[in-house]
This record gives sequence, C-alpha cells and structure tokens, in this order.
Amino acid sequence: MNEPKKVQTSIDLKKVKVQDEFWSHIQQLMLDVVIPYQEDVLHDRIPGVEKSHAVENFRIAAGEAEGQFYGMVFQDSDVAKWLEAVAYSLLIRPDAALEKRADELIALVGRAQQEDGYLNTYFTVKEPEHRWQNLRECHELYCAGHLIEAAVAYYEATGKDAFLQIMRRYADLICARFGEEAVRGIPGHQEIELALVKLYRVTGDEKYLKTAQYFINERGVQPLYFDEEEARRNWHHWSGGPVDNDYYQARLPVREQQVATGHSVRAVYMYTAMADLAAETHDPALLEACKRLWNNVVNKQMYVTGGIGSTRHGEAFTFDYDLPNDTIYAETCASVGLVFFARRMLEADVNSCYGDIMEKELYGGILSGMQLDGKRFFYVNPLEVVPGLSGRQEEYKHALPQRPGWYACACCPPNVARLMTSLGQYAWGQNEDTIFAHLYMGSEADFDLRGGVKLCCESQYAWDGKVRYTFLKADGNFALALRKPEWAKSFQLSVNGETLQPVEKNGYLYITRQWNTGDTVEILFPMEVRRIYCNPAVRENAGCVALCRGPVVYALEEADNGKNLAALRLGRDVEIHTEKQSGELGDITLLKAVGKRLAPTEDLYTDIPFAQQEASITFIPYYAWGNRGLGEMRVWIHE
Amino acid sequence: MNEPKKVQTSIDLKKVKVQDEFWSHIQQLMLDVVIPYQEDVLHDRIPGVEKSHAVENFRIAAGEAEGQFYGMVFQDSDVAKWLEAVAYSLLIRPDAALEKRADELIALVGRAQQEDGYLNTYFTVKEPEHRWQNLRECHELYCAGHLIEAAVAYYEATGKDAFLQIMRRYADLICARFGEEAVRGIPGHQEIELALVKLYRVTGDEKYLKTAQYFINERGVQPLYFDEEEARRNWHHWSGGPVDNDYYQARLPVREQQVATGHSVRAVYMYTAMADLAAETHDPALLEACKRLWNNVVNKQMYVTGGIGSTRHGEAFTFDYDLPNDTIYAETCASVGLVFFARRMLEADVNSCYGDIMEKELYGGILSGMQLDGKRFFYVNPLEVVPGLSGRQEEYKHALPQRPGWYACACCPPNVARLMTSLGQYAWGQNEDTIFAHLYMGSEADFDLRGGVKLCCESQYAWDGKVRYTFLKADGNFALALRKPEWAKSFQLSVNGETLQPVEKNGYLYITRQWNTGDTVEILFPMEVRRIYCNPAVRENAGCVALCRGPVVYALEEADNGKNLAALRLGRDVEIHTEKQSGELGDITLLKAVGKRLAPTEDLYTDIPFAQQEASITFIPYYAWGNRGLGEMRVWIHE
Repeated sequence: MNEPKKVQTSIDLKKVKVQDEFWSHIQQLMLDVVIPYQEDVLHDRIPGVEKSHAVENFRIAAGEAEGQFYGMVFQDSDVAKWLEAVAYSLLIRPDAALEKRADELIALVGRAQQEDGYLNTYFTVKEPEHRWQNLRECHELYCAGHLIEAAVAYYEATGKDAFLQIMRRYADLICARFGEEAVRGIPGHQEIELALVKLYRVTGDEKYLKTAQYFINERGVQPLYFDEEEARRNWHHWSGGPVDNDYYQARLPVREQQVATGHSVRAVYMYTAMADLAAETHDPALLEACKRLWNNVVNKQMYVTGGIGSTRHGEAFTFDYDLPNDTIYAETCASVGLVFFARRMLEADVNSCYGDIMEKELYGGILSGMQLDGKRFFYVNPLEVVPGLSGRQEEYKHALPQRPGWYACACCPPNVARLMTSLGQYAWGQNEDTIFAHLYMGSEADFDLRGGVKLCCESQYAWDGKVRYTFLKADGNFALALRKPEWAKSFQLSVNGETLQPVEKNGYLYITRQWNTGDTVEILFPMEVRRIYCNPAVRENAGCVALCRGPVVYALEEADNGKNLAALRLGRDVEIHTEKQSGELGDITLLKAVGKRLAPTEDLYTDIPFAQQEASITFIPYYAWGNRGLGEMRVWIHE
Repeated sequence: MNEPKKVQTSIDLKKVKVQDEFWSHIQQLMLDVVIPYQEDVLHDRIPGVEKSHAVENFRIAAGEAEGQFYGMVFQDSDVAKWLEAVAYSLLIRPDAALEKRADELIALVGRAQQEDGYLNTYFTVKEPEHRWQNLRECHELYCAGHLIEAAVAYYEATGKDAFLQIMRRYADLICARFGEEAVRGIPGHQEIELALVKLYRVTGDEKYLKTAQYFINERGVQPLYFDEEEARRNWHHWSGGPVDNDYYQARLPVREQQVATGHSVRAVYMYTAMADLAAETHDPALLEACKRLWNNVVNKQMYVTGGIGSTRHGEAFTFDYDLPNDTIYAETCASVGLVFFARRMLEADVNSCYGDIMEKELYGGILSGMQLDGKRFFYVNPLEVVPGLSGRQEEYKHALPQRPGWYACACCPPNVARLMTSLGQYAWGQNEDTIFAHLYMGSEADFDLRGGVKLCCESQYAWDGKVRYTFLKADGNFALALRKPEWAKSFQLSVNGETLQPVEKNGYLYITRQWNTGDTVEILFPMEVRRIYCNPAVRENAGCVALCRGPVVYALEEADNGKNLAALRLGRDVEIHTEKQSGELGDITLLKAVGKRLAPTEDLYTDIPFAQQEASITFIPYYAWGNRGLGEMRVWIHE
C-alpha cells in the first residue's frame, strides 16, 4: 500500500469544467475582478494601494524604461503568478484581449532575459555583481520557479510555447550551473523544485527532474550549504531576521526531517516537490518523509481553519500544539501550498486525509484570505481578532482585523488567484481502472479510460451534502471512488436510484461495476452541526468549542454578537439551529443558538462567579469574516 | 474626605523594627546574600553572569582607572540602588565593615563628580558633548534621582552627610538648569521628581520641591518637550523602539491623563511623585489624577499577582483588560514602583485599597522576582510558562522560565533589595490622633503621639490571619486603625480579651479609646481559600479560576502536577484543602484538590468531548514558582 508510485493522476485542467454554485461564483470573481485588479496593481494603476512596480521592473531590465528596481527581491514572482492565473482563466473563459496582453507581457519578460538565459529583474537591474551569490536570502531560484510554473501553465492552456522556450533557456542555465558535478547550491525559498518537475513533465527532458532531485537531496547535507555560502559572503540582503537552518528546512537532509519547521510556505512548497519526486522516481524513503511531515503539519501544527504557521517571527511553524489564535500567522500562501502538497500526496498515496485537508483549506484558510468582493486580501488569517490589539499592538501588528488592498510583499493575492482558477484539477483524479472524486465540486470532467468517460457532478456543497453524478458517456467496467469526508458520520449512496453499499478503503468509497452512459450516482452526507474540541495540549483552546458544519468552519463576529466575544458561553447541550441567509455575506447557512453571556462587571477580579445572561449567538462561516467593518472575531467559543 | 493634605505619615524607618516570621527571613537574606552578591556583581567579581562594570565606570569617571564606559546609559543607578539598600540594611543590622565599604564607594562617587556638580559616568566618560541633550532617551535625570534617593537614605540611616552634600551639589545644578525661568526640560524616565521631594523633606530647601513640581507640571504641555528636543537633535541613543509620547506619559499634562500608558516603571515612578506633591502641596487636581490613574492601573490593567505591564514592547501598559499571561511583562520594578505609589497615596488618602495592593505586591509580583535563595532574579514575572515557548520563541523571549543571575539591564534586583530592606516604613503610619497598621507585618514600632507610643505586632501572616498587638508603652486617648484586607470576609477583634466592634471607615477598623501600656488587641482574619474570577473582558482568563488564600496568590507547577497544566480542571464544587509543608520552598501552606485532567489524545481536533480523569492538583504560592528546575507554570486553571 505504501509502495511508491503515481497511484493516480490529477485530472488535466483542460478536461474539467467547474460548474458549481459555490465555486463558479468565486471563479467568475477571479476572472471579472481579481485578475483585472491584479493586472492594474502590477502596472501601478491603482492609487492608494502599495506600489507594485513589478511590470516596470521588467521594462527597466529590458532596457525599455529608465529607473530603479523597486520592490521586494522576489517582485518578479508576482508577475509570474498573475500570468499563471491568466493561463488557467483562459481555460475557464477564453478572452482574446486578455490573452493578447498576456502575450505582450510574456514578450516583455523575454526581452528582459539576458544573453545567457538569466532572467531576474532584481539582479539584472540592481545587483548584477551578486547573481547566484546569496541563494539563501535572495529568492532567485524561487522567482525562476514561479516563472517556469507560469510558462508551463501558459503553454498547456494556449498551446503557445514562447514563454516555455524563454523559461527552458533559463532552466537550462540553472541545470547547467547547479548539481553534483557543477556548482553547489540550494534555494533559500523552495519553489524551483516543483516547477522543474512540471517542466520535466511537459518537456520530457530528464535534466529538469534530475536538478529538482539535486535541490531536494542536497538540502540539509553536511557541510550545510547556507553556512558555506554565508562564510564566503560579506553582505546580507535582509537585516536581522531568522537565519538558522531550520527556518529554511535545511538543517537535516529532507528524508531525516521529523517535524515541520521554519517558514511555512517554504516548507509546504518543498514538501510538494518531495511528494512529486516520491511518486515520479519511486522513492519510498522520500514518501515516508512526506507522510511523516504531512502528519506533523495537519495533526500537530494546523489550526482548525486549515491555517498553518504559528508565529510571525519567520512566518513560521513553531512546535507541536503551539497554536495561538491571535498572534497566529496562518499565511494564505501556506494554506495554498498545503493544497499543492495534498494533491501531490494523492498521486503517491490515495487516502481521504489529503482531500479532507484540501476541502478544509478551500472553504477555510484560503477563502478567508480574500474579501467577498475579490478586491482586498489577507496575508495573515487569525482565529481571534480584537480591534485595538489586532493590527495595532506590536505582537499583533501583522494580524490585521481588516483586509488591505495590496501588500508590499504581495505573494498571497496572486497565489489565491492561480489556485482558484485551477480548482478543477484538485477535484478529480484517475488511474487505469478508477475515477477518483477528491472534492465535491460541481463539474463536468473527461477521463481517459475504457475508451473515454464523461462524468457530470452536481453538488449542493457547501451548505448541503447531496451530490449527484451522471455518466454523460461511459461504457466499461471500472470503479468510481468517492472520498468520504472525515466530518461525515454516515452516508446514503444509490446507483440509478438503488441503494448500494460501496467498498470503503483508505477513506474512499469504491463502486466498481459496468458503467453505462446515463448511469447516475447519488450520495448524501448529512450535514450536522459538529462541536469540535481541540487537543488539551493546545493551551489557547482549553475549555472551548468550535462549530463546524460540513466543510465549513464557523466564527463569531461582533457584528452579530456584540463586543467581548470571550464572555459568550455555549453550553454543551444547547441546541444549534441552521438558518439560510442571502445578504451581504452571500447565500450562506448561519448557525444560531441561545447561549449565555457573562454579565458585565466593574470588578477586575472577584470571588463571586459571574452571573450569566441569556444571549442569542450567531455564527457565520469563517471564510466570510471581516466583510462588515471593524469588529471582534473569534472561532473558539467557551463551552 | 478627598481634601488634599498629608492625612497621615509613613513611619520613619528608624522607628520600626521588623520581627516577622515571613519577612525577617527575607530581610536576613537581603543582608546575608543579596546585598553582598550585588556588591560583588557591581564590582565584577562574579564569573558567569552579565558584566556590570558599574563601579568601574565611576573609577574611570574619577580619573582613577583607564578604560571605556561599559553598560547601559543608566548603569550608575545600579550603584545608587545598592547604596540605598545598604543604608536601609544598616538600620536592620549595623555592619561596620559594610558601612566602611559604602563610605568608600560614596567617596568614589564624589570623586567622579565634575567641577560644576554634574555627576553621571556615561556622559562624563563617553559622550561629554551630549550632556542634557537627550533627556528623552538618556536617563540622566533618572540616574540623578536614584543617587539622590540613596544619599537621603544614607544620611538618614547613618547621620553622615558626605553623600547628601555631593548630591545637593548635583541637585543644585539641576534646579538651576531646569525650570520655568531657565532651560526647558523633563526627564525621559521619571524618578528625579520623587527624589527631589525626598531631598526637600530632608533639607527643607524649597527649590527641590519647586523643581519636582516643574518636572511634573511641564510634562505633556504643548509644544511637547520631547518633540522640540528631537527636532533639535540629529542623533538617537537607542535604535528603533517606541518613541511616542504616550510611552513617556508625556502626551498630555499629568492632570489630564485618564489611563495609564507606556513604560510601566516610568508611569508608577511618576505617579509616586504626583502623589507626593499632591499631599505636600495641597493640590486637589493632582490628587484626583492620582486616584484616576491608580484606579485605572489596579482595576483595569493589573494581573491578579499584582504584576503590571502587559507587553514587552516598551515594557508597557497596553489598554484596559489586555492581560496576556504568557507574553506578559509585569516587570518586578513596576510592582516595586506600585508599592511606592501606594505608600504615597496613603499619605493623601487613607483607604484600604492602597494597603491591599502593597500586600498583594509584596507576597506576589515582587517576591516572585527573586529566587528563594536570593541569588537569582526575574525581570519579567509571567503568569503562564511553557518551556520551549517561554524564554525561547520570539514573542516570549523575555518571559524566562527560570531566573538568571543578573541582567545587562539590572534595574530589578537592586530595586527588590532596597524595598525589602525598607519594608518597615510600609507597615505603619500615623497622624496626630491615629496609628495606622497598613500591613500585618510582625514588628516593633515607635509613634510620636500622646507622649510616645510603642507598639508590638505579632503576626502569623502569610499563612494564618491571626495578629496580636501589644502596647509596650501607651498612655492616652487615640485610635488604632487596622486595615481590613479586601480578601477578609469577616474578622474577630478583641481588646484585652474582650470582643469589640470597631468603627469601619474606608476599609480601616478604628479602635478609639484610652490606651495604656500592656493593652492588647487581637484580630483574626479567617484565611479561607478563595476562588478568584477575572472580568470576562480579559480574554485570556475566560473560563478560568485562580486560587488565593489570605494575601497569597497560588500557582500550579509541573513539578507537582505533570506536564500540560492547561488540561487540568478544577470543578467549581471541588473541595480545596490546605497542607503545611516545610521543604525546598520554605515553610509554606500548599493548596490541594482532587480535580480532573482531560485525557491525552492523539487527535488534534475531535468531535468527541475529551474524557476526564481524576487528578490530584497541588498549588504552591505564586512567589515560590521557578525554584525547582524548568517546567510549566500557570496561575489560572480551567474551572
């Protein structure tokens, strides 16, 4: 069962069309608002938000504009992620004008490329003498990775290979420079590894795979590369900040790493590449390491909303069960990266735990990163917000109570865009005899087995657990495997109207039979409100409960419940009602209960237990918080 | 009742002798361990602890040694606080050798004084060109204040006036330089004000009082002095750090300040001087401000242990009800300063609330600042400690789980020493017709009324609320006023064995009668275990209870209760037993209960409420925590 191989393959984006009440709306928002908005930001056309300058940097590097480089050392990656999102968006809805502008931007990127293939505006414009000298701090390989990902996506979406050729030239330079028989080096911010795997898959050129392996295998090997590099160098890019090798997941060889450490986005991007390589190269030790790190992340260091990264210091993991709700980091990008990791794990190990986390992230930690109107974004996704503290006091400055329009470090908004426009590929997978439904997302999908299968999924998610599959085309004996969500206590399954008990294996429900065009499958996962308790080792949640229903985690907001949410009490036996609502938060299902509120008092300390008054308590979906002005929010309520 | 005047006067230290089972031991520790240890530290004779160099700085300033100034800009104040503690200690136990060494050190201080009276080793040795130019950041007036306090104490204890004369010369320079008709200026770290009041009282020279008033009155007046100073200056002493005027309590005139802001030690030192001046100069607006700020501190911003200062950022107050237990600051010095403030308030407004806080600080936030052996000290006094987090993770680095031997910024240890050696003056007060017992501290004290009264107090505190007074000398009609502790639900009072109902006023029990030599008073405050609840506006303590008994706040430690103290539950109806113990924590009373512990589990999140196992729970006095190796600690336990 643990035998390392690509046990199933995620569906090709071109073969799936999302048609889902919940997600199609989000995708439309990406096309109509987020991508145009981000295009404007990248071109510095939006007044009042952080200047991007990312496109202008390429113009300067190409010699087509005067000026200085501006922005982060990884500013190029914003352009890359936007182009990647555009590529995916063109599959959702062709847009000739957008494609033309993307082609032009790609041509500009190409003109910024140097003779030898090198392509990085910061080191071309600002510090040409420092090229490749500070891999630890300077994101050169990271930016390269994002541009490669974008080029692969653009090629796959449009069939045009100009961008791909640009990036192959750069990738060839990188592969020639780094390796066991070349110069030693590993990236400070992992990303190039998973990008090189993608490039290998689209080109078939094994040197890309080999260099990806090299970067993964070289990490944490003694003498530690970053220490060597630092000893050679007499300058730093960043002042202060974390510099230990754990921050970079580079203290131990990856196969020996026991727990997730350091910068959480770097970690999950690295794990993603590790899972890719484990499946691609049949590397059982690497797969074991992936599973170990997966388990550590999701079972010891993950917030109930799916957020990961417990501290702003290094935007990092800390240690098992350290999950503060207010000084939290839980970067949107890290949740995005955990979805990347999950999809790769599914290709090496079919188990419902991965799809469960994808679902949790999508309806939780990632979606909360975006305003409902698609125009504002969170970098940090707290589980507890107190105005006056959050976003203001020093320890809480990063945990903003309201989403800003853009960031100086603008990694998250385009990361959300490229994920949301490529949602389809997370929903489905297949191997030679099974179609896997990883997510219950309404869609039409084509599968390459038994002469071709076309399957339609209609889903009431996120508010109802009823899902219906229709085989629009099928003729053959194979299995349809449906993930059983971890939250589902039971299910009712019928095929062509007849109840059926599927075979359950590793959290998937397998229905193996002769499938014909017109066959239907209906499955219902009753969505009951669940009271979730947290391991008592998490100090912050002791005595508290969080409410979930289906894939959605709920939260309390001041807008519904008044100030001082910590004074609310939800007794264990209190009945919780659902209530559908269409309004400023969209079409959602609220949770309501009559709980208690500790009576306000003048005393700071008293030996008289506080009186409790009856209080109506309203819970909204966590992802929708922060859309109604400044106010308190919390996920965990005292029981 | 609010009429501003010195309604009673704290007892002169020379007129009180502490003879108390609890405190005499601590005082002996000061004499036998703390003062000699600190003397060694100041002379750089202790290997392995932070270098002090404080005495050497004076040698260099006096031209008697070669070398550079080393240490903080306020390093001189460590010498001052030690000398002040020595002065008090000589009243407890004469020590000719120690006094000789102190005299020599004082002579060295005198030799470091400049021609014009200026006396600061940093600005004499290191930056003579910057004298008086950076009052905001450079602690010149602060160091002057501490040296003045020490000189006054040394004069009062020994009758020798050499130190006092040195400091009068410096004070004269300061009074000539600053004032309405001289140069504008206020101290960045308040302290000079209360010192000048002391100097006024011992010399009778009104210019010292006037300059103290000037510094208090000038604060927060537009245009703000620190802004003016900064505009004139092109250098900073500190890089980064808080620079807003609230940090310095200098945004508003002191009489208009509504809440405690900024650096907590600066705040309480300022409030102390304000209370001094309110009583000394009959200033009702100033007294009102003192009361307002007192109430804000103790009723909105104080930990149950007496700690104040919620954040390490600026070692500062934050806002009402923001009292995190683990990222806390609660500097030992701030608790010491609150005791200073309380004693001054009692001189303007006899109310038991001030003595209650003095008691809370002494048995809580201050005593916890010192290892039981007197050799190690806390700067920060957390209410929740988790090894791996506390003292290690960035937000918690300051909240050490174990006391170090010394600090680079060594303000707290000598502050504890000077308070503990002068404890007697906090215990008693008098006016023309009343003797006030503010603290129940065993002692013999002389009072200047009705021809002289000598009173002996025998107390079972902190473990038993039985207190006995014997008039060793008395003949006259006057009142004995005993503070009724806020924790005492009831009391039994007898005079010469006969039960008596005293008159209760502002928390004091007045027994007014003809007192004769040999009269006895017995009062018993039954010490029951109290369950203390925290205002629900304090998020961190929601659902929790803290245990107190008499003046002592209790805490849980891993040494008694195992790991994961957050998993312990103390049901509201669980009986709590007391148990006397003599051991490594001294002669103490423990609290014990049979509570519950949430059963350990593998799941991070679960919808099954955790099983609860029976668990023996042991509470130790908070002040004694951290004396048995590294482990968890917490004050608030889930109910």
